[in-house]
Amino acid sequence: MDFPSKLIENAVGELARLPGIGKKTALRLALHLLKADTDITASLAEALAKMRFEITYCRTCHSISDAEECSICANQLRDHAQVCVVADVRDVIAIENTGQYRGVYHVLGGVISPIEGVGPTDLHIDSLVERAAAEGSEVREIILAISPTMEGDTTAFYLSRRLRDLPNVHISTIARGIPMGGELEYADEITLGRSIVDRQRQVS
Amino acid sequence: MDFPSKLIENAVGELARLPGIGKKTALRLALHLLKADTDITASLAEALAKMRFEITYCRTCHSISDAEECSICANQLRDHAQVCVVADVRDVIAIENTGQYRGVYHVLGGVISPIEGVGPTDLHIDSLVERAAAEGSEVREIILAISPTMEGDTTAFYLSRRLRDLPNVHISTIARGIPMGGELEYADEITLGRSIVDRQRQVS
Ligand SMILES: [Zn+2]
Ligand SMILES: [Zn+2]
Repeated sequence: MDFPSKLIENAVGELARLPGIGKKTALRLALHLLKADTDITASLAEALAKMRFEITYCRTCHSISDAEECSICANQLRDHAQVCVVADVRDVIAIENTGQYRGVYHVLGGVISPIEGVGPTDLHIDSLVERAAAEGSEVREIILAISPTMEGDTTAFYLSRRLRDLPNVHISTIARGIPMGGELEYADEITLGRSIVDRQRQVS
Repeated sequence: MDFPSKLIENAVGELARLPGIGKKTALRLALHLLKADTDITASLAEALAKMRFEITYCRTCHSISDAEECSICANQLRDHAQVCVVADVRDVIAIENTGQYRGVYHVLGGVISPIEGVGPTDLHIDSLVERAAAEGSEVREIILAISPTMEGDTTAFYLSRRLRDLPNVHISTIARGIPMGGELEYADEITLGRSIVDRQRQVS
């Protein structure tokens, strides 16, 4: 097979290295860019390169950031007494999307996984403890928002133990239960059981 | 909602302008690039920009090209007596992918569509006639490989009329019939009818 142009062949090849983008989709995207205004491609290429080369990590919460401190940590309108602990930046963005949280974050950079050789020292756990224990720390609540998988639960358990002796800091965990719109009969029994034990009083 | 970084927000925004890429997919792609080596992003951004700004159109077949003449037209191992007429570059690549064709191409740039205001003069039809009629032309067969839609059929009919008086040039059309693996009972009746009329003798 001949590609009529090496330039498009290269572009298709590079696009197809992205996860979930096959050769056909890559070709469709490349042809779309060729038909569209040159500005579209220029700003896409520039945004990707700028992101990759200029992004850094927040010194406080370890989230991705444009500066030493991320825009969430730097935002004085957010509640710096509440720290939500998550495994990944993806989780920060998911929680931000809900619009329900006004505190700040702490990104661990993963979960404890003996199988994958990830131990507590490979994660930003010490810095979380230091952050909460520091003289004059504003932190009053640490919310563990870690996926309830086996590894996530191990991580949450480890964190609870590391954090339990801190004075004036409450530890909480995101609620587990039947998802909105979920049907009781399809819920697994552990989730259903917990949703009964952790039942909430109806506000009348 | 706050994005922890404007740089990733911009990159996600640009990626999400691509057709078929939603915000969630765009975020997944951006985070993938952030985790991967910087080289990956650098070569993706460069390949896209180079493609968009350096690609041109072949003066002979009007396909996308890196030079005045595309790599298919420039390839002397290809059969320049056969010209396959297609609507779009996409079709060139689809036919090249089959590995069954060794001739050259002519890209119309679309099909005749009165509804969308596309007439014969908006397409590379005159240049096809000139190419086939030119003194010393090598063209001996023109294969119409245009999708059998109403507009495609109109275009093919128009082309047949424009080309029919050329001496020494045969006009042919890609075979239509039941697709490989297709079930007779699900084929539409026009396709099935044509597949009987255009039946091929079994080679024993
Ligand atoms: Zn931060
Ligand atoms: Zn060409």
